[in-house]
Amino acid sequence: MNAESFLLAKAAQTEAALDACLTALNDVPLGLDQAIRYSLLAGGKGLRPALCLGAAELLGGDVDIAMPAACALEMIHTYSLVHDDLPAMDDDALRRGKATSHLRFDEATAILVGDALQALAFEMLADTGNVEVIREVALASGASGMVGGQFLDLQGEGKALSLDELRRLHRAKTGALIRASVRAGAVLGKADDAQLGALTAYGEHLGLAFQIVDDILDVTGDEASIGKPVGSDAGNEKSTFPALVGLDEAQRLAQEAVDAAVTALDGFGAKADSFRNLARYIIERNH
Amino acid sequence: MNAESFLLAKAAQTEAALDACLTALNDVPLGLDQAIRYSLLAGGKGLRPALCLGAAELLGGDVDIAMPAACALEMIHTYSLVHDDLPAMDDDALRRGKATSHLRFDEATAILVGDALQALAFEMLADTGNVEVIREVALASGASGMVGGQFLDLQGEGKALSLDELRRLHRAKTGALIRASVRAGAVLGKADDAQLGALTAYGEHLGLAFQIVDDILDVTGDEASIGKPVGSDAGNEKSTFPALVGLDEAQRLAQEAVDAAVTALDGFGAKADSFRNLARYIIERNH
Repeated sequence: MNAESFLLAKAAQTEAALDACLTALNDVPLGLDQAIRYSLLAGGKGLRPALCLGAAELLGGDVDIAMPAACALEMIHTYSLVHDDLPAMDDDALRRGKATSHLRFDEATAILVGDALQALAFEMLADTGNVEVIREVALASGASGMVGGQFLDLQGEGKALSLDELRRLHRAKTGALIRASVRAGAVLGKADDAQLGALTAYGEHLGLAFQIVDDILDVTGDEASIGKPVGSDAGNEKSTFPALVGLDEAQRLAQEAVDAAVTALDGFGAKADSFRNLARYIIERNH
Repeated sequence: MNAESFLLAKAAQTEAALDACLTALNDVPLGLDQAIRYSLLAGGKGLRPALCLGAAELLGGDVDIAMPAACALEMIHTYSLVHDDLPAMDDDALRRGKATSHLRFDEATAILVGDALQALAFEMLADTGNVEVIREVALASGASGMVGGQFLDLQGEGKALSLDELRRLHRAKTGALIRASVRAGAVLGKADDAQLGALTAYGEHLGLAFQIVDDILDVTGDEASIGKPVGSDAGNEKSTFPALVGLDEAQRLAQEAVDAAVTALDGFGAKADSFRNLARYIIERNH
């Protein structure tokens, strides 16, 4: 399947499951419920759920066994966006083409939406019945993963990071959760050690490619396509791959990471074509 | 054991386990690591861990089987305090006699400390190997529990809540996690249905008593003892039990809840004396 169809299909499945999950919530204060819904069902690309569901399917598992984890990963990703957009953090007004949660509601509500989404994610993960998957996602999203990466990102504003520092930042901020998404689906799909190793490598290279391209799009993209202002990295004085190594070299690094992601799937044959196409699409996308 | 000795003993055990957990963390950015340590090891009373560990012990279990859950509960409680203290929420300067995290560090760091502590809590909970305990804590701390209660608390500022609304607020904001603390220890201590029911009732009554007394202390306590400014509820225009029903009736309601908590333990005999003393202590404490 081509990457756009693959992502759209998985995003539709995930969105339906997320909607059902929110509808089933009991005893949530009305205003908080609405704010959670606004933030979570905002039409994200759904990369993390697609990786989780795709990995389970690739191993012959049913999409249902990975769906609670896929929902949890989208909840964690969304909570991180809601908190990153706060005035004390990146202070962004626009997300996925809509007003950010703290502007649509207020700061306190946005903080609580994020907190609630993280708790709900682990409630969903409990539905997988797999404590290893829970541990993996907790580790990837915490102080040595996503949250630590956001801390490094804020600390790095106005400083010239080295390429190694920038890679560490991105490995933590976005790489860890992307890697965990593939691994969660793989574990739930009962991957053997070799399969888990191959899919882990795929996730790591894909995450790096994704971040380099994100940096490139912040220079070359247009606001209507990416749903947030372009040039915000430069405005926030953030180190980026294009700023550090130049646009051409950044594009070469992205291509190298995509190639490595595709190569990691060699053992899977044609079944992994959707994942191969997804890796190639990372570099072709314009949003 | 008398309640103060019981709490001190359990707090010392928990603090040592929390310290070991933080020391074992890998690859956390230095400044974030320090801020997590400052917030988490701040000498809290440790009520939630004490309830978790005490419930497991009461059932003949070893304290070690409940320690990861006890640590997780203290992490979740601490993250909620760090976020509740933020300028966009209760805007408090003092917590446990020390500068609140966003003043000691900055707002962004305080938000990330809270986020990281929640993730770390679920990583610890994975160590229990028990997905039911993970689900229970996730539910109690999320949108229909602690986070929902904080939302109701903020929404209720400047409004006159009914007694029912105030009880709902507190059942969510503090009651749910206190209840889950007892239940987590009970489940890990392999409680049968009758034991779990009795300990659940104990936790519910204790949580209510705790909150009523907290409201009373905000009127009658002194700042040095409670470690934060007195009168802050009135200053924030929050509904409280004393404001709603008067000081005498609030004290009667607290006593009633303590009595019910003690009665719930009837089936356990002398083994439950520490828990009985703890319930009575709630009403005797002055901080």
